[in-house]
Amino acid sequence: MKKILSTLVLSGSTWIAAGQQPAALSDSAMIASIYNETMTHAECYENLRHLCKNIGHRLAGSESAQRAIDWGKTVLEKSVPGHVMLMPVEVPHWTRGAFEFGGYATDGIEKEVALTALGGSVGTEGKKITAQVIEVKNFDELKALGEDKVKGKIVFFNKPLDATLINTGAAYGGGYPIRGQGPSEAAKLGAVACLIRSLTLADDNFPHTGATNYEKDVTRIPAAALSAVASRQLSQDLKNDPTLQFSLQLSCEAFDRTMQANVIAEIPGTEFPGEYITVGGHLDSWDIGEGAHDDGTGIVQSIEMIRTLQAIGYKPKRTIRAVLFINEEFGNDGGETYAKRCKENGLVHVAAIESDGGGFTPVGFNCDLSDKQYELAASWLPLLEPYNLFRFRRGGSGVDIRPLKDDRIALFGLNVDGQRYFDYHHTNNDRFENVNKRELELGAAAMTALVYLLDQSGIPAQ
Amino acid sequence: MKKILSTLVLSGSTWIAAGQQPAALSDSAMIASIYNETMTHAECYENLRHLCKNIGHRLAGSESAQRAIDWGKTVLEKSVPGHVMLMPVEVPHWTRGAFEFGGYATDGIEKEVALTALGGSVGTEGKKITAQVIEVKNFDELKALGEDKVKGKIVFFNKPLDATLINTGAAYGGGYPIRGQGPSEAAKLGAVACLIRSLTLADDNFPHTGATNYEKDVTRIPAAALSAVASRQLSQDLKNDPTLQFSLQLSCEAFDRTMQANVIAEIPGTEFPGEYITVGGHLDSWDIGEGAHDDGTGIVQSIEMIRTLQAIGYKPKRTIRAVLFINEEFGNDGGETYAKRCKENGLVHVAAIESDGGGFTPVGFNCDLSDKQYELAASWLPLLEPYNLFRFRRGGSGVDIRPLKDDRIALFGLNVDGQRYFDYHHTNNDRFENVNKRELELGAAAMTALVYLLDQSGIPAQ
Repeated sequence: MKKILSTLVLSGSTWIAAGQQPAALSDSAMIASIYNETMTHAECYENLRHLCKNIGHRLAGSESAQRAIDWGKTVLEKSVPGHVMLMPVEVPHWTRGAFEFGGYATDGIEKEVALTALGGSVGTEGKKITAQVIEVKNFDELKALGEDKVKGKIVFFNKPLDATLINTGAAYGGGYPIRGQGPSEAAKLGAVACLIRSLTLADDNFPHTGATNYEKDVTRIPAAALSAVASRQLSQDLKNDPTLQFSLQLSCEAFDRTMQANVIAEIPGTEFPGEYITVGGHLDSWDIGEGAHDDGTGIVQSIEMIRTLQAIGYKPKRTIRAVLFINEEFGNDGGETYAKRCKENGLVHVAAIESDGGGFTPVGFNCDLSDKQYELAASWLPLLEPYNLFRFRRGGSGVDIRPLKDDRIALFGLNVDGQRYFDYHHTNNDRFENVNKRELELGAAAMTALVYLLDQSGIPAQ
Repeated sequence: MKKILSTLVLSGSTWIAAGQQPAALSDSAMIASIYNETMTHAECYENLRHLCKNIGHRLAGSESAQRAIDWGKTVLEKSVPGHVMLMPVEVPHWTRGAFEFGGYATDGIEKEVALTALGGSVGTEGKKITAQVIEVKNFDELKALGEDKVKGKIVFFNKPLDATLINTGAAYGGGYPIRGQGPSEAAKLGAVACLIRSLTLADDNFPHTGATNYEKDVTRIPAAALSAVASRQLSQDLKNDPTLQFSLQLSCEAFDRTMQANVIAEIPGTEFPGEYITVGGHLDSWDIGEGAHDDGTGIVQSIEMIRTLQAIGYKPKRTIRAVLFINEEFGNDGGETYAKRCKENGLVHVAAIESDGGGFTPVGFNCDLSDKQYELAASWLPLLEPYNLFRFRRGGSGVDIRPLKDDRIALFGLNVDGQRYFDYHHTNNDRFENVNKRELELGAAAMTALVYLLDQSGIPAQ
């Protein structure tokens, strides 16, 4: 199969030079052409290196996020000069500050623990908060304790993710509410601070940050995540010394919201320019590590999709867009603003694809489709299986593209082998070195192949 | 789906304590039980740490291979005391020696290159071989040059693997003949040594070793692999300076063949003890790095299969074996001897499963099956898909189990996401740190689930 495809492509690549039409090639040959171009000439890995190493982490609202926006525009201009625009987006501006400390003394030994403030946490106003720790597994346990036992203490949510769930995203989903609502639930019972076990399946010493959401009219208490190892250690020490005093100091600060931008590049459609297919990821990252898998990879794959289509000389029927969304992590302003502006301007989206599960080997696509749409997508599987794309899995597409949801659009998310994702997610270890070049490129090619199929066939309304 | 399975298993685990029969559980509940046990209590990751860090690399014939054999026996005895045996196997004994050097001077600069002797290479008898280099892509180019242009020179095979092949094993297969036959082909035309570009898709500075096969009655010339980076550099330098003199020194030595052993553990069958299902990997590794993915992972997964079945109290109908084969890398003595002894003793194998593609996320199984067998295996896919096992792919199972092939046996190989395998394969970088705990465990659970299905249903003869 592969040999036949390669041969077709070698002859296929001549049609561009000879000015023949893409229609001369079968779908399987076009997909082979996309893969061959990506696997031999992709620039996504070097783009990721630049984004991670020369720009680094880029929390929305930060100067580095602004540098990333400028860089994204410049890179996209190389593939589609004159077809790149910035869409202003209002984003929050929060900083971790220079200093984070957590520790306690037990059995005469001082221990500093690996922790990191949750995104959006308040700081400790230049002081250490020192208090007794009360450990719980979940909200039910917390509520059962009641105000008497919680007031004045630091609540420590210590529940490992469920390792028996095969898809790590499902395990993460099980822990997610604690990071979001934990601090407010603790504050309602008078806690003075909140610690959580990092949302990871790895047993290591990297703390994982991520947004927490203070409830309205509830006291905002400082909140931080402990590494898995630190959580285990603290839990053990609490068994031996239940009254140990934990000290926490955070220097987080919130500032006024500020203006940044989504970066949008497009290849105008030749037959149905008013029908849009958007491919994207989010340009912002958390403010530790390098935002490599989350979501530098989605960004450089979306850029690569545009580059590959241009490199093989593909003239789309519909308008194809790459969108680098700003601020997925901290309120989804980029996705919300994009959908709002598109609707205001009467843009019709027929499909959108997001990559935000890390730059790992793709195995298919998640999708949010009607039955009729699903039937069409499933009919493409024989074309995709030679590339180890095994499934369209119903449920979930991507946070950035979700606001586009209407009764017309087909939504897809690149479905990757996510076993390692939550080892790196939101940590100082989410670095370029942990991304594999071929895995990254296969994801870019998979999205480009799906764009081609969607563009050629169109897709029925939901 | 997952939630239902988990519930079944929680109640399911009580049947063991209550002495009920496994038959009380459906296949899907039993497979869930296997996965839950493995994902929460597996010892394979810590076993791999021990094998890699406390024993290290273990070329057949070496003292460390002997230590690995002793360790394997001890670990297996913990799960099936009294059911572990050693099967003597004669293996070669070759050593790289303490010293390897390759380098050249060009443009007034001395360059030492990253290289490693190919397995089985002769040494350079304590001297440096210094000669001009002639670069070729393949055997055709070499033969076209003829003896005149090759005699007295060092032949340098410099052909990158084909990056457009999606399955990296296929790309490796394309380069493999050069490592095996390259030195002899070069020697036939009078070359004094042979260099090859490492068989990898990564662009890094790790040289990859692996067996070369000297042809009978052809002069044995020293042979080494250059890293991808060194190959690129040498090729560039040869363009500027075609007469540059390359120096090579290797201190390899071959010794008399010696006796080591396959380690065999079994859980005797309760209904058909004379029908065997063997699961294995190879205990030997190359003599650089730690032999983590190749094939420490296959070893600890095979051991884990036995541990998991015992832990959940499964009583197999057929006899289930874990076999730690010795010397896959250097002549497949372990696999050949095992098949020979089994046939001599009239043991009937109904199936064998090998893991030798690295400890990455499994996506299914390769298989060497008759149509009737394939039909049965394919009927199990709905039970395996919840665990992201997508396919039985025809073609290939494993080198160690291949000699068992007859008109009865069903052969399987764990099919994993192999994108990273040839980054590590046969290098100093094949280390424990590059194995992910969950990916390793999922592979062990997948093999155990297949063992369960094979054991329950049996499988028709080919």
